[in-house]
Amino acid sequence: MAPPSIVRSALSVFFEYDTPRIVHIRSKKVGVINRFLQLAIISYVIGFAIIYKKGYQDFDDVNSAVTTKLKGVALTNLTDQGINGTRVWDVADYVIPPQENNAFFVMTNVIVTPGQQQDTCLESPSVPDGICSAEKPCVPDTPVINGNGVKTGACKPSPRNSSIEVCEIYAWCPVEKDDKPSKPVLLASQNFTVFIKNNIEFGKFGVKRRNLIGFDNDSELANCRFDANDKLNRFCPIFILSEIVESTGQDYYNLALSGGVIQILIQWNCNLDYSVEDCVPEYQFRRLDSNDYKLAKGFNFRYAEPYLEDGVKKRTLIKAYGIRFIVTVEGKAGKFNFVPLFLNIGSGLALLSIATIVCDIVVLYFLKARKFFKEKKYLDVKGADAYEMFDSMKQSAEYESTGQTKPK
Amino acid sequence: MAPPSIVRSALSVFFEYDTPRIVHIRSKKVGVINRFLQLAIISYVIGFAIIYKKGYQDFDDVNSAVTTKLKGVALTNLTDQGINGTRVWDVADYVIPPQENNAFFVMTNVIVTPGQQQDTCLESPSVPDGICSAEKPCVPDTPVINGNGVKTGACKPSPRNSSIEVCEIYAWCPVEKDDKPSKPVLLASQNFTVFIKNNIEFGKFGVKRRNLIGFDNDSELANCRFDANDKLNRFCPIFILSEIVESTGQDYYNLALSGGVIQILIQWNCNLDYSVEDCVPEYQFRRLDSNDYKLAKGFNFRYAEPYLEDGVKKRTLIKAYGIRFIVTVEGKAGKFNFVPLFLNIGSGLALLSIATIVCDIVVLYFLKARKFFKEKKYLDVKGADAYEMFDSMKQSAEYESTGQTKPK
Amino acid sequence: MAPPSIVRSALSVFFEYDTPRIVHIRSKKVGVINRFLQLAIISYVIGFAIIYKKGYQDFDDVNSAVTTKLKGVALTNLTDQGINGTRVWDVADYVIPPQENNAFFVMTNVIVTPGQQQDTCLESPSVPDGICSAEKPCVPDTPVINGNGVKTGACKPSPRNSSIEVCEIYAWCPVEKDDKPSKPVLLASQNFTVFIKNNIEFGKFGVKRRNLIGFDNDSELANCRFDANDKLNRFCPIFILSEIVESTGQDYYNLALSGGVIQILIQWNCNLDYSVEDCVPEYQFRRLDSNDYKLAKGFNFRYAEPYLEDGVKKRTLIKAYGIRFIVTVEGKAGKFNFVPLFLNIGSGLALLSIATIVCDIVVLYFLKARKFFKEKKYLDVKGADAYEMFDSMKQSAEYESTGQTKPK
Repeated sequence: MAPPSIVRSALSVFFEYDTPRIVHIRSKKVGVINRFLQLAIISYVIGFAIIYKKGYQDFDDVNSAVTTKLKGVALTNLTDQGINGTRVWDVADYVIPPQENNAFFVMTNVIVTPGQQQDTCLESPSVPDGICSAEKPCVPDTPVINGNGVKTGACKPSPRNSSIEVCEIYAWCPVEKDDKPSKPVLLASQNFTVFIKNNIEFGKFGVKRRNLIGFDNDSELANCRFDANDKLNRFCPIFILSEIVESTGQDYYNLALSGGVIQILIQWNCNLDYSVEDCVPEYQFRRLDSNDYKLAKGFNFRYAEPYLEDGVKKRTLIKAYGIRFIVTVEGKAGKFNFVPLFLNIGSGLALLSIATIVCDIVVLYFLKARKFFKEKKYLDVKGADAYEMFDSMKQSAEYESTGQTKPK
Repeated sequence: MAPPSIVRSALSVFFEYDTPRIVHIRSKKVGVINRFLQLAIISYVIGFAIIYKKGYQDFDDVNSAVTTKLKGVALTNLTDQGINGTRVWDVADYVIPPQENNAFFVMTNVIVTPGQQQDTCLESPSVPDGICSAEKPCVPDTPVINGNGVKTGACKPSPRNSSIEVCEIYAWCPVEKDDKPSKPVLLASQNFTVFIKNNIEFGKFGVKRRNLIGFDNDSELANCRFDANDKLNRFCPIFILSEIVESTGQDYYNLALSGGVIQILIQWNCNLDYSVEDCVPEYQFRRLDSNDYKLAKGFNFRYAEPYLEDGVKKRTLIKAYGIRFIVTVEGKAGKFNFVPLFLNIGSGLALLSIATIVCDIVVLYFLKARKFFKEKKYLDVKGADAYEMFDSMKQSAEYESTGQTKPK
Repeated sequence: MAPPSIVRSALSVFFEYDTPRIVHIRSKKVGVINRFLQLAIISYVIGFAIIYKKGYQDFDDVNSAVTTKLKGVALTNLTDQGINGTRVWDVADYVIPPQENNAFFVMTNVIVTPGQQQDTCLESPSVPDGICSAEKPCVPDTPVINGNGVKTGACKPSPRNSSIEVCEIYAWCPVEKDDKPSKPVLLASQNFTVFIKNNIEFGKFGVKRRNLIGFDNDSELANCRFDANDKLNRFCPIFILSEIVESTGQDYYNLALSGGVIQILIQWNCNLDYSVEDCVPEYQFRRLDSNDYKLAKGFNFRYAEPYLEDGVKKRTLIKAYGIRFIVTVEGKAGKFNFVPLFLNIGSGLALLSIATIVCDIVVLYFLKARKFFKEKKYLDVKGADAYEMFDSMKQSAEYESTGQTKPK
């Protein structure tokens, strides 16, 4: 046969195709195992990875902006706390700080300590380290641990509880009476509303949406209230605080008393293979700080409003209990794309080899006809090492007979 | 043949190698399909997964800290709002709250209501629920919906609009005149600058960088201004607010009037196979709250500055319109690593089996020579079930002939 | 042979099983390469992907809520800054803003400028753009760049530094003396404590935990202090600020002087195959804003406390240096699940084909016996194109001989 030219040989590469040789075994036992495994794998790949997990789609994560606006006023009476008269609380009073990123705080209970000024006074008897006696004197210039000031060194009977003596301290005086009101001062906050404006974008697909869906004018919008079960109002972005809290399974009264953390989860799960109009938000609410524990319950913090009275710097100290709402926006948009589909099919085919491997184990080790099948499946080639050796010998012989030097 | 010892048999396992037997088909039709599919898959794996997606690199996400500092003063004249004289606004006036995590707010427009105190006064006629008449009386002790206070029950002619009657309310009085100024009060904020300090770290690779690149001293740094098109100043971390806004395609005047949310995206995409000096930030700006809608545009909130005047607690209520800037730091660093490269090649090879499967389908079902190829590819083994049965019979016979009991 | 019915043929599909035919090559060279590669791949899959990376588990990310509460008081003496007497700073003074999401700020150093009011005064001589002369006059109504006010146009000798002239400005007067105190005013903040309450949830597995582990009552909790090396106190959620800072390798004094950003990382890595009691937090601390640079070090911001004195609006301007603590919660919970195990085994098997491919290359291109093995592995089938042609001819002939028209 004439040797093929290099060109023909190179071209022929494009007209070749290799496929494995297969033993086609007709066996009831192994066939059933094989088909069952294949079915399970194909079901998993098609049913779970491709259809359920949308393996045919390319995904993008949401990019979001949230702004919130509270509305509502509450009338309180703080005579329990020694403050005369009623007081109106509006949004500038009970939202602290006035704006936060993806969060807002609503004060629901309060301990007000007005008229504090820099002075010396007696520590509160409720602070353990502030209690003193002849055996446990007050060390001057050391702070009271978990207390309100720095000790002057004096130890005097407490006016609030005359049976014990407390340290005198440098502090904002008088110190706070840390008795949580027996009922939430701002219980009326349950009727406050919050307008949550959420703009989102799926940058990869150029889709922008916001959570005002189906409202035509500002007055229609201003008067709606969110209702998960109503066809239109489940897209209303105005929420009543008590309804948010109650849909987490919590009691507003108890939450308002001690404070807590509530998550407002806005989910945008959009299948952009359908109309973009179907890309709508879903709201979920849950309490993040569990109430199942006895220790360290609730949420509160202190802040002060400084002022000047008769040339003296004073401040109103406010211990604010309340609900911190955290707005979390999650979302994923999917759109058909050939690449992920192809990858999922490819990895599905790779998984199919598991069926063959399991069946091979059954056939070659557990069936009585194992020797018979082994002969059919395997072609045993033993000559390799001998061939190598023989070939070396032959080459040496050739070089010798032709008188050439064997190349290194 | 002598049976091999166990040791020899165990050792021989290490000198074996199994490889599938292949049918090498020389066919123009199938060969072309086969090579084309293989080429497509290899192009995808090498070109997309390995080169484009840097499948040969191990990745780490960025860990970042952002601090911001604003500079600038603005002179305003609030005589429109009944407040005398000019006023200077500095950073402590227009940044609220004074520091936030990964965000800052700049006030650009304002409605100031000075001298509010706890009192009874008339609701603003612009609140629908505050309007009353003989048919629609004011229910005492109920809050005005979306209003400023709690109704006392009285209904009086509004001094602001004498043709209608409004409810008297307990509130911070006088109530705010909610007329947005016709032009942004703090338009001068467009010349304010913000210094964004961003330290990042790729922990896995021990790389720390920050966004001050190429500046030798504080004065050089203080005088630079960001310019995306300038070789040096594209690394200047001091931004003019109007330039941020304009590079999002928005008009500063309109944004300042109603407020909005702007994202400052800092991207650190670093290929650590090159010099770490090439690991530099890239800045992008975009408006997050879309302006394409008519309803509920802009961003504003209210806060109060309390003070004491002649023994009476008063406050200045401020409705602040402005721009909330959100600083988002994204980043990924990659460095060559054998494991991901190996995994990508492995999954690429798995994908190659798709070419064989497609060609097998063509060869076995569509070619006219399908029977011919089937014979070559498949070795049909039918005897399995019969062999099993025969083997059982033979064993039973053996047990019977030797008189032994068949084991269970 | 009778043709099988369609039903029997369909059923027979379930009793079939295809397995590749294999050449079993006994060669020391290739066998060793083969087994070594297989061992490496299997070690990687089992050791790294399945055992080390817990490839047999399904994972869920943590959902978290963090609240923080600071305790501690400090006594300061600001006579350096021209302010008489000692002053107590408590939590309402040094935490600004009073609450933040996943972060808190503690003031450690301060420049107080009391008694500012809207007026005209001279710019600070430390602002370059505020310095004027006959050649560089003050342009009226332009703001001083990086300065405190808007120029009136006048240029007068600076009282603070009489050798230079500065512009007169409309500003909050007097302007701040921006001289950082030589030592941190609130160095006592090192003894402050922060109680970090962290509730987490792994929603997929229904597991809720919080970082108060092993404490039975509020007093035990209130008195513990975090200690990473103590069996019980490594779960104490009360941290001393100086210990947080020192465990990042930083010096509290220097950090307090200029300010900085510290990350408190809480990691919940839980293996839910074991007891849920073993799901405990781990704390890490690190400084986020690197201290290795000379430019723009530290963290500070300005805020104001407005008040009314004798009918004049005044404010106290506070430049606050301090430490911003950012609390980051990371976590992953894993639980045994068949699907990821199965997927990892599947992709491991796919990788095994790499060993066969490498050995095939050795056998078919590098061994001397390559022709011998090629013959065993490959069955060369050339007739395909001829068969196709022949078949077409035969069909044409048949149609002709029967007088039928060849179908299109």
